[in-house]
Amino acid sequence: MAIKIVAFDADDTLWDNEAYFQETEQKFCQLLEDYLPIHTLSRELLQTEVTNLSLYGYGIKGFMLSMIETALRVTDKTIPPEAIEKILQFGKELLAKPVTIIDGVEQVLSELKNRYRLVMATKGDLLDQHRKLHKSGLGHYFHHIEIMTEKGEEDYKKLIKRLDIKAEEFVMIGNSLKSDVLPVLHIGGHGIHIPYHTTWAHEKIEVNIDHPNFRQVSSIREVTQYL
Amino acid sequence: MAIKIVAFDADDTLWDNEAYFQETEQKFCQLLEDYLPIHTLSRELLQTEVTNLSLYGYGIKGFMLSMIETALRVTDKTIPPEAIEKILQFGKELLAKPVTIIDGVEQVLSELKNRYRLVMATKGDLLDQHRKLHKSGLGHYFHHIEIMTEKGEEDYKKLIKRLDIKAEEFVMIGNSLKSDVLPVLHIGGHGIHIPYHTTWAHEKIEVNIDHPNFRQVSSIREVTQYL
Repeated sequence: MAIKIVAFDADDTLWDNEAYFQETEQKFCQLLEDYLPIHTLSRELLQTEVTNLSLYGYGIKGFMLSMIETALRVTDKTIPPEAIEKILQFGKELLAKPVTIIDGVEQVLSELKNRYRLVMATKGDLLDQHRKLHKSGLGHYFHHIEIMTEKGEEDYKKLIKRLDIKAEEFVMIGNSLKSDVLPVLHIGGHGIHIPYHTTWAHEKIEVNIDHPNFRQVSSIREVTQYL
Repeated sequence: MAIKIVAFDADDTLWDNEAYFQETEQKFCQLLEDYLPIHTLSRELLQTEVTNLSLYGYGIKGFMLSMIETALRVTDKTIPPEAIEKILQFGKELLAKPVTIIDGVEQVLSELKNRYRLVMATKGDLLDQHRKLHKSGLGHYFHHIEIMTEKGEEDYKKLIKRLDIKAEEFVMIGNSLKSDVLPVLHIGGHGIHIPYHTTWAHEKIEVNIDHPNFRQVSSIREVTQYL
């Protein structure tokens, strides 16, 4: 591989994220368990989130608004205002979570930094992601930070064009096959998949990838075998 | 001026924005006028927004969350859930507003496009701003789009560094003295102020600027006199 740019997804690749969302979702479901069973609440919340995705995008604020909307709908507007206040509180706590860097990340970044241009390419809310990057202290490893509204083939094509390289010189490393790996393989780039222990239902896909530019590793430490 | 890059603010410089927020705020105040007089509600909402700014950033989703928080506080949690639902509805309507391009913008962009590299540099929510840019059809005029979490001196320094020019080769055009003009003048760039008919209370400042790199115009059409 004549790789020039190594791009990393951030949430659940560089630092923990989904586990915090699931913890908040659990609190939300417990808050409303007098109205509906927890698994039904989870399903209702996911449905609201997915419906609102094109309007709100990814990130905690959209998640907060979707929790409030779900609470109003499933209780048929009988939810007490105190519960709405609790949901705001859950969201603010989620925004204030510390950033926990995944084991091995710093070592890999500092090893690769001198041999490649490193990029962080993440979906999500601009302020959330800047805040997490700042808290993480990882900013100095990256040549470029790209916060994307979506991670489809067209979005990666634009990014690669802006970085002024060819697709075959680009490798994307991340925990989501759907967002980090498949679109990059489809446009001629390389993808390394590092599964995270939990995945948002909307990002889950069932697929077997057999592609010469694809690698799967179980820990970020292993990516240096290929780079 | 040996200008290389002409940067434009977006909200209330390229297209209308603040007027839509004020319209929504008015609906919010009317919804709660049984609890508090409208001018008090406005003040309470502003206070919530400013307090939440570091947590939520700029944009409609944060505004929606601040409206809900204010409604809970000023009614001492006696607000009926139907009113919360209304607030969500107001916010969704605000997100779906059409983009109205300000008179003269297209003509100025197409005149300047061949002589300078044009940049759009705006604060706000990533998805909101991408959506508005897309709806506006103005994207093709710009060499670079920068969506910033804040517009302070450091943020402009980073932008200018990334654009690979000197501050004196950079001019910023916008409706906010505080965000678009003063920080750019302070780091050695040029600023052109185009007042918009209404300004968010938090962006208002009283200042007389006497600086060789500063111009004030009453319409975007006039910027071509200086460029």
